[in-house]
Amino acid sequence: MSKTGNVFANLPVIGCADEDIAALLDVPGLRVERIVSTGQASPPGFWYDQPRAEWVLLLSGAARLRFDGEDKARALRPGDYVFIPARRRHRVDWTSPDAPTVWLALHFDGGRESNCD
Amino acid sequence: MSKTGNVFANLPVIGCADEDIAALLDVPGLRVERIVSTGQASPPGFWYDQPRAEWVLLLSGAARLRFDGEDKARALRPGDYVFIPARRRHRVDWTSPDAPTVWLALHFDGGRESNCD
Repeated sequence: MSKTGNVFANLPVIGCADEDIAALLDVPGLRVERIVSTGQASPPGFWYDQPRAEWVLLLSGAARLRFDGEDKARALRPGDYVFIPARRRHRVDWTSPDAPTVWLALHFDGGRESNCD
Repeated sequence: MSKTGNVFANLPVIGCADEDIAALLDVPGLRVERIVSTGQASPPGFWYDQPRAEWVLLLSGAARLRFDGEDKARALRPGDYVFIPARRRHRVDWTSPDAPTVWLALHFDGGRESNCD
């Protein structure tokens, strides 16, 4: 893990790789990851159900993120961010097969927001 | 503060605004900000000296970040990230006057990394 770098460096090649996850920062209470999807989606029927809250920012590519109980997946484009409370079931319905989808994912303790909208 | 959004929405106009800081997430131990610089720099002789650690990611534009004791400022381009330990004095020498420079800044407790490179 490097303290400095570029999130777009060394992207995996479409069609040649599994989803790629790298820690960019790992301190007590906070882990920052770069996730690169190259067309992958969550397996059918699979839901993430995480003990820590997560905040994701789509940096490049395109994806569809679905929350359990919502009718439609949310289409994400570069710059879009979403807060995912701890234990909020969600899945990735789709990522672009045409270009790498780069996510910045923050996993953190202290799950409840102090200011809700 | 909205739980979802786009970091490139509602950018201030170059030449018409001060540096713009907005909280995207604020939970105990972690604050995520979008900072938009439109040509601003830290005042001459000024150094940030923060009680919390910070992790910054340049999302668009260009900037030069200087650490106290380093000969040269670090030139940042989109995708570049830098970890700034608590109390590490630093300043922004320059941001692009031509296009908005969008930073994602994480301010967090638990300042020391568990894995150093």
